[in-house]
Amino acid sequence: MDPVIEHLTTIVGARGVLGPADLGARADGIFSSETMQGRALVRPANTAEVSAVMRWCHEQGLVVIPHGGLTGLTHATKSGPSDIIISTERMRAIEAIDPMQRTATVQAGVTLQALQEAVEAQGMIYPLDLGARGTATLGGTVATNAGGNRVLRYGMTRDMVLGLEAVLADGTVISSLYPLIKNNTGYDLKHLFIGSEGTLGVITRLVLRLREKPLASHTAMVAVETFDQVAGLLRHMDRALGGALSSFEVMWRSYYTLVTTPPAKGRAPLPNGHSFYVLLESQGSAPERDAENFQEALGAAMEQGLLVDAMIAQSESETRALWAIRDDVVQLRRDGDPVGFDISLPVSRMDDYVREVERRLEALPIKSLLYVFGHLGDGNLHVVVAVPGGFTPDLKHEIETAVYAPLQARGGSVSAEHGIGLDKKPWLPVSRTEPELAVMRHQARARSARAAQSRQDFGPARRLRSDCSRLKRSTVARKSGVIAR
Amino acid sequence: MDPVIEHLTTIVGARGVLGPADLGARADGIFSSETMQGRALVRPANTAEVSAVMRWCHEQGLVVIPHGGLTGLTHATKSGPSDIIISTERMRAIEAIDPMQRTATVQAGVTLQALQEAVEAQGMIYPLDLGARGTATLGGTVATNAGGNRVLRYGMTRDMVLGLEAVLADGTVISSLYPLIKNNTGYDLKHLFIGSEGTLGVITRLVLRLREKPLASHTAMVAVETFDQVAGLLRHMDRALGGALSSFEVMWRSYYTLVTTPPAKGRAPLPNGHSFYVLLESQGSAPERDAENFQEALGAAMEQGLLVDAMIAQSESETRALWAIRDDVVQLRRDGDPVGFDISLPVSRMDDYVREVERRLEALPIKSLLYVFGHLGDGNLHVVVAVPGGFTPDLKHEIETAVYAPLQARGGSVSAEHGIGLDKKPWLPVSRTEPELAVMRHQARARSARAAQSRQDFGPARRLRSDCSRLKRSTVARKSGVIAR
Repeated sequence: MDPVIEHLTTIVGARGVLGPADLGARADGIFSSETMQGRALVRPANTAEVSAVMRWCHEQGLVVIPHGGLTGLTHATKSGPSDIIISTERMRAIEAIDPMQRTATVQAGVTLQALQEAVEAQGMIYPLDLGARGTATLGGTVATNAGGNRVLRYGMTRDMVLGLEAVLADGTVISSLYPLIKNNTGYDLKHLFIGSEGTLGVITRLVLRLREKPLASHTAMVAVETFDQVAGLLRHMDRALGGALSSFEVMWRSYYTLVTTPPAKGRAPLPNGHSFYVLLESQGSAPERDAENFQEALGAAMEQGLLVDAMIAQSESETRALWAIRDDVVQLRRDGDPVGFDISLPVSRMDDYVREVERRLEALPIKSLLYVFGHLGDGNLHVVVAVPGGFTPDLKHEIETAVYAPLQARGGSVSAEHGIGLDKKPWLPVSRTEPELAVMRHQARARSARAAQSRQDFGPARRLRSDCSRLKRSTVARKSGVIAR
Repeated sequence: MDPVIEHLTTIVGARGVLGPADLGARADGIFSSETMQGRALVRPANTAEVSAVMRWCHEQGLVVIPHGGLTGLTHATKSGPSDIIISTERMRAIEAIDPMQRTATVQAGVTLQALQEAVEAQGMIYPLDLGARGTATLGGTVATNAGGNRVLRYGMTRDMVLGLEAVLADGTVISSLYPLIKNNTGYDLKHLFIGSEGTLGVITRLVLRLREKPLASHTAMVAVETFDQVAGLLRHMDRALGGALSSFEVMWRSYYTLVTTPPAKGRAPLPNGHSFYVLLESQGSAPERDAENFQEALGAAMEQGLLVDAMIAQSESETRALWAIRDDVVQLRRDGDPVGFDISLPVSRMDDYVREVERRLEALPIKSLLYVFGHLGDGNLHVVVAVPGGFTPDLKHEIETAVYAPLQARGGSVSAEHGIGLDKKPWLPVSRTEPELAVMRHQARARSARAAQSRQDFGPARRLRSDCSRLKRSTVARKSGVIAR
């Protein structure tokens, strides 16, 4: 038996360790057709076991890759044959739900949906929501600072984390499991781990903030002719609904046509041919008053010329049908795997940006189709380029350049909510400056040092993979001409 | 002329530097009767000047203390005769307000009130609000992660900062001036600086998130008999108002009596003698519908036995009168300077906590008066102990022990929104563990290193005062017996 597996078994028990043969039977991501690679996959049951595993791997010089639900879209969890994978799949305890403080204390391996269901039974919600809810783990959503459909109202995952416990590369447990909304006692260290994608440590437990369950919800689809009107509608509805606006999802014309035309199952609730379609949702507390408010707000928007057509859902099934149109992203795969992007930029630059991407794609030597939709209320667009004839790696790079390059001059970001992973590593310098990257590299080094307290000891990170090397300015990005600095 | 002043003048001009004589004419805080001490006070006009000043002071081994509006309550800005003070008082430009992106880009020395007024003129709000608004600078509110009265609805200052620029001790400019709500590109470094109280660098510019201006506001004072009912009322109102609840301010009986009895100017809107009084505010968009909703929600609370008496403000002047009662904190100084605290803890532990503090104060060899009020919606209480006979330093320490010691077992924090400064330095280990403090010390060291990029160079912080030494476990705290670890 591999002595590594043998030793890990002494820490977590036989049930807690899988070897290469077992890994060969697992996919390395929920959207992946490849199998998982690794020397061992360890499944600790609690923080103490995570700490013991990390300490030992650190001493042995083994690379450790943390795994949650593997629903990420940027290949952050990709492992090689000599890596040790540490999975939170056996850390699924919802330890406490406090209805007075409105907090939940959970282990990192609990799925988003498991927590949603547990707190809804007590009249509350955990407001994060995304398509992968049944598989995505809470630890993973925190490690990637997940967004989703209701950021406009409730913020990103970052805004829902009150307390966090993580194990550093050397096994040190940093426990900041505070249930407090306000806690100004020195640096708020949890924010370093939120969005760090497993590069600074393994998140083991969380205290999450819950909210009261909304008592009423209203949904509409509207059609708009110009982008300025879309932006004006966002402000108008946000003001008119006084804090209840929870979603403002925009679809550019080509995406709307795609998802409302066969073979898509959805049928167009408003005629095709308008420039933009917006899916609006309000979440409030007074069903009848909210309905009047919602209708009046849309009526006023029409009078002000901010929209040309609107359809308000009259039932739960109509609401579901409207959301199903927005969410029918599998239509994007009709012509094979597309190239997908998750970017953000100021609303005032979006229209101009999309036109620039269109121009750049048209200049390429292949025919491609551009689909744009996203969470406009948060400045977040999903840009998808389908290439009916398929694409080579070189062509993929040209497409990436067409989408990423115009972001820099417009103050945009190469990742709004999906993170960097391995996929966007070459493009990070488009969005972050060299001094910022230097600070990040330093953080990665410090956390993976043998002893965080001793300043003699800051060796390069070797323990947690995807360490600072991910943050290095890449030659690919240099070559692309994107980097002007 | 002092060569230090001479050299600083070459960087910022004669108008930009004050010497010891000028400092002797300035108070060292807006609530202080002491004058400012220092070798020089430098007033740079922009980031480049801040960087040049910091670089030179760093080379010279001079201690630099950053100053904003000096409205802090924890003596974080206290300087000594050999210190260099760097003040943002000449960095008062509101550089841009973007109504489409709903952001403001400002220099750090802009006052809170100046920004509030500028954005309200464009139909928006910057939702942070606190008593010192006319003097407090935006840089200071970010450095201390200020709270205030509407955290329940809009969050802390941290939640309003989209982008941040800071100058490190060695003059390095870290510019993360992103206007984006979503930006998952590596570690979110701004959170390190938010709440760091000037220990990691000088905040120079900010991109702040604006919100739509609420179109309707409703306010009420209610009386409640038990703490469980107060906690139940919070959940009930939050649910019933569907996101519009913006303040939930609780006053314990003794505070309410103090501020509604002569010589206080306020008169009791509800009779004295109940156990708790709550000031409630909702901010929505539909004046009439919101008014009905607010009234119905309070009516339902009364039917459910969550409150015994209520008074809804019927005019702007009645609203102001209710807030004036809550805000009449100067009454606490009737018997000389009291000992004031700003703590947070889980709502479920508050009642029990306040009783424990009462018991401990009664056991002291002096007569003291305990006043409790605060932002219950955020778990934040202000605890004030008045000692009519005055107090010695030893007695003050006993009072601090009575208030802080019972927090530890209840998962509370010694600072909810005021920060640590120099005052609470000895008490920090009550709320944070040794591994957390070790990480904080490391952060302070790294940021003040000569070259942040070079790992050979992490000397102890000597540049920015209140460096890691503030974070050391104090012998005072040890002696007090508070620290069990």
